[in-house]
Formats: sequence, C-alpha cells, structure tokens
Amino acid sequence: MAPRYAPSLRSRLGPLLLFLQTGFILIYAFYFEIQDNVVVDEAIFRDAYAEFQDVNVMVVLGFGFLCTFLVRHGFSSSGFNLLVAAVATQWALVLIGLESWYDRGKIPLDLRSVLVAEMCAASALISMGAVMGKANPVQLVLLALLEVSGFVLNERLLQGLLKVRPLKGIMLLHIFGAFFGLTLTWILYRKGSEGGFEKEKFDKKSGLFSMLGSVFLWMFWPTFNSVLVDDRFPGRKLGAVYSTYLALAVSAVTAASVSVLSCPRGKLNLIQMQSCILAGGVAVGVSMSAVHQPWEAMAIGFAAAVLSATGFKYLKSHMLLAFHCHDTAAILSTHGLPGLLGWFAHLILQIKDCGDHTVAIRFAVFHICTLLVTITVSLTMGTLTGFLLRLNVWRPPQNRKCFDDQAFWEFPHLAVRK
Amino acid sequence: MAPRYAPSLRSRLGPLLLFLQTGFILIYAFYFEIQDNVVVDEAIFRDAYAEFQDVNVMVVLGFGFLCTFLVRHGFSSSGFNLLVAAVATQWALVLIGLESWYDRGKIPLDLRSVLVAEMCAASALISMGAVMGKANPVQLVLLALLEVSGFVLNERLLQGLLKVRPLKGIMLLHIFGAFFGLTLTWILYRKGSEGGFEKEKFDKKSGLFSMLGSVFLWMFWPTFNSVLVDDRFPGRKLGAVYSTYLALAVSAVTAASVSVLSCPRGKLNLIQMQSCILAGGVAVGVSMSAVHQPWEAMAIGFAAAVLSATGFKYLKSHMLLAFHCHDTAAILSTHGLPGLLGWFAHLILQIKDCGDHTVAIRFAVFHICTLLVTITVSLTMGTLTGFLLRLNVWRPPQNRKCFDDQAFWEFPHLAVRK
Amino acid sequence: MAPRYAPSLRSRLGPLLLFLQTGFILIYAFYFEIQDNVVVDEAIFRDAYAEFQDVNVMVVLGFGFLCTFLVRHGFSSSGFNLLVAAVATQWALVLIGLESWYDRGKIPLDLRSVLVAEMCAASALISMGAVMGKANPVQLVLLALLEVSGFVLNERLLQGLLKVRPLKGIMLLHIFGAFFGLTLTWILYRKGSEGGFEKEKFDKKSGLFSMLGSVFLWMFWPTFNSVLVDDRFPGRKLGAVYSTYLALAVSAVTAASVSVLSCPRGKLNLIQMQSCILAGGVAVGVSMSAVHQPWEAMAIGFAAAVLSATGFKYLKSHMLLAFHCHDTAAILSTHGLPGLLGWFAHLILQIKDCGDHTVAIRFAVFHICTLLVTITVSLTMGTLTGFLLRLNVWRPPQNRKCFDDQAFWEFPHLAVRK
Repeated sequence: MAPRYAPSLRSRLGPLLLFLQTGFILIYAFYFEIQDNVVVDEAIFRDAYAEFQDVNVMVVLGFGFLCTFLVRHGFSSSGFNLLVAAVATQWALVLIGLESWYDRGKIPLDLRSVLVAEMCAASALISMGAVMGKANPVQLVLLALLEVSGFVLNERLLQGLLKVRPLKGIMLLHIFGAFFGLTLTWILYRKGSEGGFEKEKFDKKSGLFSMLGSVFLWMFWPTFNSVLVDDRFPGRKLGAVYSTYLALAVSAVTAASVSVLSCPRGKLNLIQMQSCILAGGVAVGVSMSAVHQPWEAMAIGFAAAVLSATGFKYLKSHMLLAFHCHDTAAILSTHGLPGLLGWFAHLILQIKDCGDHTVAIRFAVFHICTLLVTITVSLTMGTLTGFLLRLNVWRPPQNRKCFDDQAFWEFPHLAVRK
Repeated sequence: MAPRYAPSLRSRLGPLLLFLQTGFILIYAFYFEIQDNVVVDEAIFRDAYAEFQDVNVMVVLGFGFLCTFLVRHGFSSSGFNLLVAAVATQWALVLIGLESWYDRGKIPLDLRSVLVAEMCAASALISMGAVMGKANPVQLVLLALLEVSGFVLNERLLQGLLKVRPLKGIMLLHIFGAFFGLTLTWILYRKGSEGGFEKEKFDKKSGLFSMLGSVFLWMFWPTFNSVLVDDRFPGRKLGAVYSTYLALAVSAVTAASVSVLSCPRGKLNLIQMQSCILAGGVAVGVSMSAVHQPWEAMAIGFAAAVLSATGFKYLKSHMLLAFHCHDTAAILSTHGLPGLLGWFAHLILQIKDCGDHTVAIRFAVFHICTLLVTITVSLTMGTLTGFLLRLNVWRPPQNRKCFDDQAFWEFPHLAVRK
Repeated sequence: MAPRYAPSLRSRLGPLLLFLQTGFILIYAFYFEIQDNVVVDEAIFRDAYAEFQDVNVMVVLGFGFLCTFLVRHGFSSSGFNLLVAAVATQWALVLIGLESWYDRGKIPLDLRSVLVAEMCAASALISMGAVMGKANPVQLVLLALLEVSGFVLNERLLQGLLKVRPLKGIMLLHIFGAFFGLTLTWILYRKGSEGGFEKEKFDKKSGLFSMLGSVFLWMFWPTFNSVLVDDRFPGRKLGAVYSTYLALAVSAVTAASVSVLSCPRGKLNLIQMQSCILAGGVAVGVSMSAVHQPWEAMAIGFAAAVLSATGFKYLKSHMLLAFHCHDTAAILSTHGLPGLLGWFAHLILQIKDCGDHTVAIRFAVFHICTLLVTITVSLTMGTLTGFLLRLNVWRPPQNRKCFDDQAFWEFPHLAVRK
C-alpha cells in the first residue's frame, strides 16, 4: 500500500537551497562588483528602475498568481513561484555575466543585467507552468537552474552563430519556455493520470486570485515588450508600447468571443480567457521589430487569441490523451502557439517589406534557422532535465498528493494553535 | 413556467464581439497611423507612459475588482470589466480621432489619446456599476459603446458651445457616468426586485477582493486627477497631486466616522467605506482648477465623504423603493453626489476669488450651463440606451439568475474534469 | 455573565475621528501652504511622484494586506490599516512641519514631506501589527498618534543630540516600531490568552491575501530603502536598489530553507515565509550606508532571514508563554531582529572600513548611542501608550471577540437585504 503522506522534503529542499544560496553568495563575493566610479544619470536611473519594477511585478506577482486558479494549490503556486524566481534570477545574473568575467575577471552589476536576468527567470516560470502541481519544489528549483542555463546558452548560440540581436533573442523566451516545459511534462508523465488529477480543480475565489495575476500581466505587458528596445529610439519604444497595448485589447475581446462560441451552452470559461487575453502580448513581443502599423498589431492579436483560445479548448485534452502530455497551465496555447504565430507574422511582415527577392529569401532562411536552433536547444535541454527530474531521489509527490498544498505546507487547520 | 437556465448568449455575444473587433481592425487599418517622423523625447515618453500605466491600473484592476464584493458575481465583475474596457477604449480612440480624420484624413495614435480614451472608458465603467449583475455582457458592451459616444459628444458640445477646456470637460465623467447609469437602471427596472435580488450578497472573501480594487483606486487617484494637467505647469500638477491625496486621506477618516455613527450598533460597513473613501478624489477632481490651498481640498474631501456616506446609507434603499431605481454599486453616492459637490465647490471657490461681480456672475452662468449641458446629454443618451437595452432580443438573464456567475460562466464544479 | 456582543464603538470612534479630522483641517487651514512661486522641475516632480506612489502602495496595500492572514479579521486588517495610515500621515505632516512653523510661521507642503510622513505612518503600522486583533479601532488610532509623536521626537533627539543624518534616523523605524509595539502588547496582555485566541487562525484563501500584501512589500522594498538617498548621488541610490533587491532574493530562498529544515515533517510554513522574505529588506535598510558590495547585502539578507525564521519558529511562542507578550504579526522577528542585525552589520562594516582605531571607536560609541536613544524613547513611549490604552474607557473587545470582524463590522449574512 502506498504511504499516506507525501514524502518529507526536509533532507532534500533545505540542504539544496542552503547550498545554492551559500554558493551564490560566494560567487558574488569573488566575481561581482558595483561600479562606483560610473557616473549614473538620474533620469536614466529612474527610467531603468521604473521598467525594472514593472517587470519585477510581472514576474513575482503576475506569474505567481496566474496559477493560483488551482483550488488546493494556491500557496504552492505563489510561494514556489517566488522561490524559483529568486533562485533563477541570481543564477541568470551569473550566467549573463560570464562573458564579462572572461574578459575582465569581474562581473559588473547594473539594472539592465538584473532586468535581463528577470526575463530569463520568466522563461523558467513559463516552463514551470507545465509541471505545476505535479513536481515538488526541489524539482522546480532544478528545473529553473537548467532551463535558465539552456536559455542563456541558446542566446549565446543565436548571437554567436546567427548574429541575432539580443532583443530578438530574448523575446523567443515564450517559445523556448513552452517547448522546454512541454518536453519535460511529457517525460514526467505519470501513469494513471489520463483522467486528470483528483485535486486539479478551481473554484470561485481561486479563479479571482488567478484573475488578479493575469490582469497584472495584461496591464504591464507593454513594458515587458518595450523594455529592451534601445533607449536611443524612444519612437520605437513608443511603437512597441502601442502595438502591445492594442494587441492585448484585441486579444481580450477576441478571447471572449471565441470562448463563448466554442461552448455549446454559450458560456465563457474564465481560465481559458485568462490564458488567451495574453496571447496578443506574446505574439507581438516575438514579432515586434517588424510591426509598424497599429492594425498589424491588432491583426496579430486577433489571430493569436483565436489560435490560443481554440488551442486551449481542443488541444489541451488532446495532448493529454494522445500524447500523454499533461500541461497544467496550458503553456502550449498561452505561450507556445502565440509565440510561433508571432514568429510567423514577423517572417511575413518582413518579407512583405523587402523589395528584393534575394534579401527576402536570405531573411527567411535566417529567421527559420533562429527558430530551429531555439527549438532544438529547448527540446534537448528539456529532455535532459526531464530524465534528471524523473529520478526518485527527488521524492516527487504521489498522484494522490498532486495539486495539493498539504503535501508541502504546514496546513492551516492543523497549525492553528501551537 | 420560466426556463431553468439563463438564456445562452452564444448566438449574440460571439458574433457581436467578432463583428466589433473586425470592424475596429478595419477602421484602424484605414485611418490610423503612427507618426514615425515625430521626434519623441525620452523623458516625455517615460512620464506619459508612467501616467498611462497608473490610469490603466485604475481602469482594469481598480474598477474591475471594485464590484467583486458580489459574492457570486466575481468572475463577471472582473471579466466583463476587462472586456468592456477593451471595447470602450478602442471605440473611444476612434471617436476622439474624428476631428483629426476630418482635418487630415488620418488619425495619429499617441499615448495621450490612448490615455484620454481610457478615461472615456472609465466613464462607461462607472455607468456599468449601476446595472452590474442585472445585465448580460451583450448589454454591457452596447452600453459602453453608447455611453462613450455620448460622453465624447458631450465633450465636443462643451468645447464647441461653451469653450470649456478639455481637462475640465473630461473631469465631468463622474457626473456624466453616474446620471447615465442611473437613468439606464431606472428604465431597466425589473418587476419583482423591490426586495432586492436573491443572490445580491457579499461575504468575507469577496469583501476583501473589492477592498483590493478600491484600495488601488484610492492609491492611484492622484494620478487620475493630475494626469491631464498641462505638463508645462508642473507646479499645478503637483498641486493636483497634493489636493487629491489629502482629500482622499480625509475621506477615508470621515467615511469611517460617518459609517460608525450612522449604524445603531456602532459598526462599520465595509462596502459603504469602499465607496466613500473615494468621494474626496471624485470631488477634488471636478473642482481641481479652483483648489489652491490644502485645507480647501481637505474640506471638500470631508464634505464629499459625509455626503457620500449618508447617501449610501439612506438614499440607496430610498431610490429603490421610491423611484424603482436599483443601483448595484451605489454610483449615485460614489460618483454622482461627490461629483455634484465638486462642481458646487468649484463655483463657490471661483466666485470667492473673483474681485468683480460681473466676472463672478458670468462665471456662474457659464459653470451652470456646463452642468446643464452635461446632465441633459447624459439623461438623453441614458434614456435612449435604456430603451435599446430593454429589448428582449439581447436575452437578459431572469431575475433568479441575476448576480449569478453561473448564468455566464462555465462553472467550476461542473467543469472540473473533461 | 459577560455580555454576548462586543461593546458598541458608536460613542467613541465616531466623535474621535470627527474631532481629529476637523482639528487637522483647521491646523492645515491656518498653518500649511503650498508654495506656488517655487519653480518645480518636471523631471524632479515625476521622480518624486513615482517614489511616493511606490511607498504609498507599500503602506496602504502592502501593510494592509499583510495581516489579512487572520481568517476572520480580513476587513479589520485592511480597513483599519487604511484608517490608521490616513490619520497617522496627516498627523506626521504636522509634526514634521513644526520646525518650519517655528521658523517661518508656515509649513510648506511638498512631496518629500508627504513621503517622510508616510514612512512615519509605516512605523505606526509596524507597531499596530503586534496588537492587531486585540485592540479596537479607537485604540489603534490613539496608538498611531502616540507612536508617530514618539518617532518624530526620536528623530529630533537623534538629530539634535547626535547629529544623526535624517536618512539613517528614519531607517530606524523598524527597530522603533517593533519595540514600541512589543512593549504595548506586553502591557495590554490579556489574562486567559496563554493558549492563544479562539479565532486567531488562518486558512487557504486568507493566506493568499496576505501573500499578496507581502509580495507587494517584497517588490517595492527597493524603493522604500532608496527613496531617501540624496538625489544628487544617483549612484548611491542605485546601490541601495541593488543591495535591497539582492538581500530580498537571498531572504526568500533562505527563509524557505530554514522553514523546511525547522519543521519535523519537512513542510513549509506560509506565514513564516511571508515574514521572513522581508527580513533582508529590513536589515539592509538599516545598514544601507555601509553596504558597498553585492555580497555584503546578500550575506546580511542571509543572516537576517535565518534569524527571522528561527525567531518566528521558536521565539514567538516563547515570548507568549514566558513573557506574556502576544505578538500577532510577529513583528519581533519580522522587523525587530532583522533591524537589530542590520544595525550590528552597519557597525561591523563601518569599523572594518575604518583605517584608524580612534575613528572606529568613536563611530562605535556614536552608533551604540543612536540605538540606545531609539530604544529608550521607543520603550518609554510604548509604556505610556500601553497604560493609556489599558483604560476601559476605550471599550476593548472581550477575549472571545478578539480577531473577529463581527465585533466591528456589519456582517455580511446579516446585512444582505435591507
């Protein structure tokens, strides 16, 4: 008979986190520096700080509360998100700084690198969405470390091999994170979960908490897409803000429309809407540098929301039944499909703008290579991570304890009076 | 016997939203442009963007969660708010741009116009508060389209006939929205709802969600009032921020005081407080250009909170019983009365500052005309909208299904496992 | 037999708030002025306003929702927090302006003074955490008035006697607030509460609400620590931001680690984590001017989280049983201990940097005096306040009504239909 309680993580999580954290402090002590002598312009500081805060809110609050729709999994969704974000950001700062370290022996710390590190952490949080509820925090922390490593590696490859600009490379985080997460959850598939998990439900209040998370993502997505656009071109930055805002607004309306049309009783689905209102932001983020007119952004937002809402409705259960791929937060339809659509829109728009056939074909080859490299690295790292996380040594929760806060948290009723 | 289920909206909401969204994309494709050649100053962009974000947070999160106090209506309150805001903003952008279109054939898109469009959307969201829970999303979307049209029309009339400055005109959104909403709910009055609706309740957790919304409105209201003050006078902008902040702080204290005094058992009422802490912001917003000293703002905040709290306590049920006007979110006492008070305070303060009798009388006439025009347009449009929305073709929910998420949303328990 | 209902506050709270609010309006009318003739730079206004907003969010939303983990006390935690913040800020503005009033007869109002006033209010909110649930709003308002007076007095003493810089003085708010609150709750100890209170519990949803509050504090803490750093040194401001961010990230990881290690069944404790993820921010805030390297901030964050988590686990119940000191929100381990640790870290770091023994000893004496003065004023004011609040004239709730919203709020079920 299976044990009644979820396995204790005391001997795994505690030491792992202590080891990681001590390690980080040592690395930072020896290799990081704050450049005191750099003259910081007050205005630049303020701008960078405001943008950093917006992204911080999205990463910690937005992603953190997006998965709280799982009724018995709210503590884990928000708490593990914070934990993983804190670990992943520190690790990403190290990886991003490797080049400076190689050149100068020291890694300078500045707001822009913290911001890029947060975006790398975001890609790990996207992947986490696929296994949320089925993995314990030890597995999630390892996932984050490996995903961030893979993502930064992908960045380097794209920049080294294909001369892809950093901005464009980072915006592929949706595609990278989604495929990484899907591979992972496919490998970690649990027998006996074909019919879904006993505790994978949502209710009124948990639906509102996740509404909060998704609304925060929706509101600050224009910053997310515009933040890495070069400050020397505020016009382009502004364009990124408009495009993202309009695409998000269109997505919200379209998502509601598709949701009500695809339900036989003509009702809306809140979780579906929460995923799909963000589709426009994802798609425009990936295609941004080719979007020049408002209607292009709107059309992309429209297509992304239709694709995302349809994917959520029909693909999610199909993936589970046909491919044994259980995708908790529907990252395929939230990030994967809109990301691919954005990539495709970028291709079309750029080719349309090219006068010359040769240039167009060259761009297409380059653009396809970018995607292929990203997907290859993503699938490879996902597979590796999957096999590592399958080991029983990490003590994953039993099927019955999946999606249950009680497996990891001292529980309210029992912890009332000491 | 009445049908057991709320009527399906599949054949109404889906096509309506698809039609609107496709229409908007076409309009934007043909008539909107982003001016690439305009030199954008980085600092101006940043400032405008930060203000836009604050207003965006108020519109999407603040108004969205303000009505989640209805215990079975949280999904609808927050979800429909997002939907309506997205539709109304896109529509308002078109209406605001009509003048440019007439002059130059193209409508330029800039952050300021998006911001003004969001404020027009806010006036629609205020009106929506009065019918929340009793109207279906089809009706709410139509309401938003008509309300925004009316509001922009009112703007044009005030500017054309009376040379009212845009800032002052827009700040009348509270009065316009409140009277529009009240007319509407009066016309849409449902027989058999004298005793209130079966599911119109709040509970602990839903009270906290709406607390969240009202706290966000409270915190960002200084931006809402100062955002349209001309950037060339940062001193005046600063004054608007102080005045609003102080008025809000005074409102919060006064609302608690009146709430406890007006309850026989000496208890506070959370929903009453949530409405009334915002009264100071509304009143100061309307009277802003005449407020020069901190104490004036504080006194206005005090009077507004007293009026609003008393109105909430005694007027709300009176309106229902005597006038058959059911005001879900108490927009009369939250926006209507404080708005009128602000208008009156503006009159008094301006007259006090006038040395000359003639000037004072001229101002009074002008000021009264402004109000009369606004109320006339508001009542007229509200009546028109009311008669349109009464048509059974929109399939409003039955009385028993009012204030019930189950009428519009796939419900958690039933949607657990697919 | 004890009465069944909590005593009505109608005759206490209403008049008190009315009196205070009228008094404030009169004081502001006679002594406050907005300096119209000052030329305000647009950029400076924007920066100051953004920082003010961040602090405002922390004070109103962060602190307000941090204590909503008490399952039957959510309305009170968030509502009274707003009320007390509004009263305390107005009062702090008066006290901070006394010097200007003495010099010039008028108190100028500017964003910086509002900001400092909000921080004084924050120190009152910290103290409030210790008595939350056991005191009625009348007592909380009095507490706030006296705590803010004590805190401003302490500021003046430190500046007058020891020439402590304002920034450093204000950052002692954590230590001041914690000791004030602890003294108070020790004096207000209620017989029969050794075993805890009947209604002092948390549940899933209330845990998520307080998660929201603590996440907001976590996200905006870098602003809180950097806001008072002189604008002329943006480099130092940036350093404060990095240091705080890194310390908070380290705290989050460390808190999880200590939490899981200190639980026999290897589970995490959400409330413990919510307190301890903030420890790094507190400690770095107090020691900021001596922190120059990233690893120093991280090490301080690590130590603070270990101390805080251990304190939460073992000290909280020990304080109750051994010292009869019931600390609702664990302010000792959230603010007190990390604050002291930060003070100590400041001492060590500063001495390490001193080349000269004499300078080091002089600094140590000065630093110790600063702490002694702060603790002395804090304990004295706490004692005075405690004896004042013990009076039965304020009608504190009975033990059975502690931690119960029903004592102060018109209750949902009963207030459904009028």
